[in-house]
Amino acid sequence: MINIGIVGASGYTGLELLRLLAMHPAANICVVTSNTEKGQAVNTVFPSLPGLSHLVFEAHDSDQLKSCELLFFATPHATAMYQVPEFLAQGCRVIDLSADFRIKDIAVWEQWYQVQHASPELLEKAVYGLPELNRVQIKNAHLIANPGCYATAVILALLPAINNTLIQTNDIIADVKSGVSGAGRGALLTTQFAEVAESFRAYNVSGHRHVPEIKQVLNDSHKGCKVDLTFVPHLVPMNRGIFATIYVKPIDLQATMQTHYDTFYEQEPFVDVLSGGSHLNTASVRATNQCQIAIHPSPAQGAPTVLLSVLDNLVKGAAGQAIQNMNLMFGLDETTGLCWPGLIP
Amino acid sequence: MINIGIVGASGYTGLELLRLLAMHPAANICVVTSNTEKGQAVNTVFPSLPGLSHLVFEAHDSDQLKSCELLFFATPHATAMYQVPEFLAQGCRVIDLSADFRIKDIAVWEQWYQVQHASPELLEKAVYGLPELNRVQIKNAHLIANPGCYATAVILALLPAINNTLIQTNDIIADVKSGVSGAGRGALLTTQFAEVAESFRAYNVSGHRHVPEIKQVLNDSHKGCKVDLTFVPHLVPMNRGIFATIYVKPIDLQATMQTHYDTFYEQEPFVDVLSGGSHLNTASVRATNQCQIAIHPSPAQGAPTVLLSVLDNLVKGAAGQAIQNMNLMFGLDETTGLCWPGLIP
Amino acid sequence: MINIGIVGASGYTGLELLRLLAMHPAANICVVTSNTEKGQAVNTVFPSLPGLSHLVFEAHDSDQLKSCELLFFATPHATAMYQVPEFLAQGCRVIDLSADFRIKDIAVWEQWYQVQHASPELLEKAVYGLPELNRVQIKNAHLIANPGCYATAVILALLPAINNTLIQTNDIIADVKSGVSGAGRGALLTTQFAEVAESFRAYNVSGHRHVPEIKQVLNDSHKGCKVDLTFVPHLVPMNRGIFATIYVKPIDLQATMQTHYDTFYEQEPFVDVLSGGSHLNTASVRATNQCQIAIHPSPAQGAPTVLLSVLDNLVKGAAGQAIQNMNLMFGLDETTGLCWPGLIP
Amino acid sequence: MINIGIVGASGYTGLELLRLLAMHPAANICVVTSNTEKGQAVNTVFPSLPGLSHLVFEAHDSDQLKSCELLFFATPHATAMYQVPEFLAQGCRVIDLSADFRIKDIAVWEQWYQVQHASPELLEKAVYGLPELNRVQIKNAHLIANPGCYATAVILALLPAINNTLIQTNDIIADVKSGVSGAGRGALLTTQFAEVAESFRAYNVSGHRHVPEIKQVLNDSHKGCKVDLTFVPHLVPMNRGIFATIYVKPIDLQATMQTHYDTFYEQEPFVDVLSGGSHLNTASVRATNQCQIAIHPSPAQGAPTVLLSVLDNLVKGAAGQAIQNMNLMFGLDETTGLCWPGLIP
Repeated sequence: MINIGIVGASGYTGLELLRLLAMHPAANICVVTSNTEKGQAVNTVFPSLPGLSHLVFEAHDSDQLKSCELLFFATPHATAMYQVPEFLAQGCRVIDLSADFRIKDIAVWEQWYQVQHASPELLEKAVYGLPELNRVQIKNAHLIANPGCYATAVILALLPAINNTLIQTNDIIADVKSGVSGAGRGALLTTQFAEVAESFRAYNVSGHRHVPEIKQVLNDSHKGCKVDLTFVPHLVPMNRGIFATIYVKPIDLQATMQTHYDTFYEQEPFVDVLSGGSHLNTASVRATNQCQIAIHPSPAQGAPTVLLSVLDNLVKGAAGQAIQNMNLMFGLDETTGLCWPGLIP
Repeated sequence: MINIGIVGASGYTGLELLRLLAMHPAANICVVTSNTEKGQAVNTVFPSLPGLSHLVFEAHDSDQLKSCELLFFATPHATAMYQVPEFLAQGCRVIDLSADFRIKDIAVWEQWYQVQHASPELLEKAVYGLPELNRVQIKNAHLIANPGCYATAVILALLPAINNTLIQTNDIIADVKSGVSGAGRGALLTTQFAEVAESFRAYNVSGHRHVPEIKQVLNDSHKGCKVDLTFVPHLVPMNRGIFATIYVKPIDLQATMQTHYDTFYEQEPFVDVLSGGSHLNTASVRATNQCQIAIHPSPAQGAPTVLLSVLDNLVKGAAGQAIQNMNLMFGLDETTGLCWPGLIP
Repeated sequence: MINIGIVGASGYTGLELLRLLAMHPAANICVVTSNTEKGQAVNTVFPSLPGLSHLVFEAHDSDQLKSCELLFFATPHATAMYQVPEFLAQGCRVIDLSADFRIKDIAVWEQWYQVQHASPELLEKAVYGLPELNRVQIKNAHLIANPGCYATAVILALLPAINNTLIQTNDIIADVKSGVSGAGRGALLTTQFAEVAESFRAYNVSGHRHVPEIKQVLNDSHKGCKVDLTFVPHLVPMNRGIFATIYVKPIDLQATMQTHYDTFYEQEPFVDVLSGGSHLNTASVRATNQCQIAIHPSPAQGAPTVLLSVLDNLVKGAAGQAIQNMNLMFGLDETTGLCWPGLIP
Repeated sequence: MINIGIVGASGYTGLELLRLLAMHPAANICVVTSNTEKGQAVNTVFPSLPGLSHLVFEAHDSDQLKSCELLFFATPHATAMYQVPEFLAQGCRVIDLSADFRIKDIAVWEQWYQVQHASPELLEKAVYGLPELNRVQIKNAHLIANPGCYATAVILALLPAINNTLIQTNDIIADVKSGVSGAGRGALLTTQFAEVAESFRAYNVSGHRHVPEIKQVLNDSHKGCKVDLTFVPHLVPMNRGIFATIYVKPIDLQATMQTHYDTFYEQEPFVDVLSGGSHLNTASVRATNQCQIAIHPSPAQGAPTVLLSVLDNLVKGAAGQAIQNMNLMFGLDETTGLCWPGLIP
């Protein structure tokens, strides 16, 4: 059993970690912290978790965290970076679900997050926790930067094309859509029910924090690659789900992109390449760790190929992927505790 | 492993059986039938079930059904009653999730379902599959009449009060609300998205099929009991969930109803009596087999006590309860494959 | 033209006043205030109101308010009571959409709103703005206490029965359901999209502020009437709408309640008594000032009669009713600017 | 007053015509037909329309249609084409909200609608009813082909750019999203509440019927223009609204696209160009005839400019635009009966 602490366990990402770890055969949740809910029993705050009735939310600076083998940080951005060095020094391993360790270039990170980075020395050590890309490094990592939800959907949809030099990397458009839980569990006006229901909106058209993350990862994945990406996020009136519609220009129309994708992900347990022309929906992956991808080939020379990619932002886009990383780090089968059918309807 | 067939597996109840049995350690799904989807692979129709890629929907009259030890009927009402006698004769055990065997009085059943009953001789043998009431009989049953979703929520909320003679049984009001999946997976105008979203409605105020079911079960549960029930169902713009608000008149205000309920359900794995005055919500039991109950005591002599009861109509209200019955029938621990945290959000 | 000021115009009730007054032929909106949006143009905050591009949100203490003939207060509870006396002294007439002047008994009001009342001397003068009950007094009123949304739905459903002594007033149960906009336009955790969507919940079972309001109005409406009311509110995942399901005990089953209701509301433009046994839904009155009522007679001696009542909480439950009062106060036809078809879907 | 008949008045487009015409000062609705609801009073089927209590749904072949000055066809595709010639011959003017007369090239139309066109001789005479493009011809037209909802959103967003030769017309991507009412008021499995709620999906990626319509209109709007368009539609779990995110390549980055758009639509009552970088949402135009457009300029050479466009699919995308055309045809002010604030929330 892995002794686990979760810092920031009362947000949606933390709640999803609790849900998934409660079903994990090797997870022993020892400490959960929440500044807003401290002192409350977990199953009082979340009656959906009757099996965790023994846990009480502690303060973020609980001493008990230090005795854990593995800490998940499900805190807001620019929080983990203050606490992580000390925990690493004490031998804990850390999976950070926030953005604190995702960007290698400090200047870029500080521009997007508008705060000075507190532990820049760790950026080199942090492994970007996308198992499909960094499986080997993850196994030995002490600090994982767990990918963003949008980033996971877009990177997985583009990796095979970029690695096989199938598309023009300087002309990629990602029109992405997210359910509301991606905004976190806070009291905001913009995500009030009556502001969101029966509406569809764009936001951050001029720039989203996941763009530098996506570019860095794709550029690093293939020699000489220089990705130019237009990325427009939208908010959908639903709880969960990421849907990415990606427009790319094939270099050679004769190339069978489908075959390349089928091969690339053949052995991957959590990436499903559906048959060509499939129409995806977010419900089919709700509550699962799957990323489903479908390719709609260019109908004519010059026309874009359309890549569709869906995942559950709280699972493969956050907590599920974090547990996938945990499994790798602790020598478990990568799929342990993560193979669940989706919830429909 | 139990060799299982599911008749009518492409509706929402059938889909939920597939989802839950896919996570059940002793279930071997051998045959699934669907007249509308026959010939299709299960995971083509339901991409949320990648683990069932080996199954293909068969026709309802598939010969393979006969070789199963257990058949679930997730068919529309007045369907199972034609096929069940033959299967029983061949030694299959049957759990019928429709209403065909729930009502003992044929005249009452025929009045509500407007068709002649095809196998009235089985009504005597059929055991009403509410484990909290009929656990012993269920273990040896060959034919289970699985309770309705509304009926389960209302009966479980009233059983302790009636058994302990705490309330006036001739003055009970159940104001009940259901998510849309309760109407089944058919192409209906009344359950179209644009007819349901942003609306709340009452239906069947003059009478609902679950009323005779509730009365029969409660009357049989306590000697001399004669329940008079006003029952008004409503449709909520959400996928899953039953919420019952029940108004009862206590016989003696001094009696501590809470204690009676706590005691009554103390050993029950799937009924949770929350602390007095709790405010329930359907999300807390989404995707679980739990029924949560809360008691709001009468504030004054003559005023009603309010009982709240929630469950997931597709789990404790249908497929989950059916599997709970299966576990009992086949000598498994009753909770096998049924203890999952809820899905929030 | 009536020169109008709206205090607190950036909440949902204020926004609905703006929407409806923009369509009103005799309304001249002169000043709108909002502490959170002051300095912003109305159509910047609400692009849905292009016709109001000339208005800018002022501070609550704007001097311009004093020059208005009529002020609407769409402020949170316990706000208007501080400002109203001064405005009345200057000859403004006031319609308060909050609860500050609804309850005549100061002790009761202070118990429910947990603050000392700032202008108790006005309670006597304030007219409860339910036109179907107080039409004559409203015409000459200088201060209107505009009814609550739940209160309007429940009172209108019960008035004819109580006035004609058709029911037992000491045994009334109101099971009521509301859309989320009723909670106002604030940044709350409990009304976040992901907390509300796909869930149905009860709240304030032990007591809701509209209960004393309903009792006072009904008791005053009929000599010797002493209402005992059980009232349970629920939250529905939709933007707008109140649905009340009310259970009453008829005194004489032979009495034709339907006829009494038809007669009582025959001349009322905004109360529609539908034919017996109608199943109402909230969508049919969305964006309208109508209250629809349907009666489901008792099926047997002792069984309750079920009264259904629906309205749009922001229109007949707030801004529309306020404008109905304005029309009466300023000698206009009561229906001016209020007869719009509903918005479906 | 214009004597009006509506053929197919019980679908969502027909219902929206009824709603809007009920508020129109010059509209006299004489006949409404519906094969599914014939014999029913309009306000029985739609209680949201109490003002139309005098109307009863007739059969589609009602003789009374011939006596109308203007007929709206709100029928499914390939219906109007059979009846329109006879009505035109009798002097009626016709606005067809279906696709029967939108495409000038019969071969293209027949390929997309899979049926032989019944009155090809009328295609020449039919005027495409986009007032912003064809205002003069509409005034004298006897047959209007009312534009599709997606087509209206995309064409209005692109017209100024194409007319001023600001963009490369052979590299346009339209990622479009629609509420569910766009699928019509029929009993379909794919638009059932439980299939749509909490899900987001793409459909018809390989081709949508509005693509040839958009290409024809844009190509005809500017000499030598040859549009190549990638068009991917998606379904959003909400009732109303079209959101188009359009990616175009500017020819000259120095050109101030915003100024061109501001000028192009300066006089247009129903097209609002918001300030650069605005983030649109569908709720802001709900129940209005407005199309809102926002421009997000290219951040760098080679990067696309993002055009956002929103409208209510049932108003500017169907019934509202049809009435705008009616106003023009009958010499009324174009905005008569169409200037309503939006409904939020």
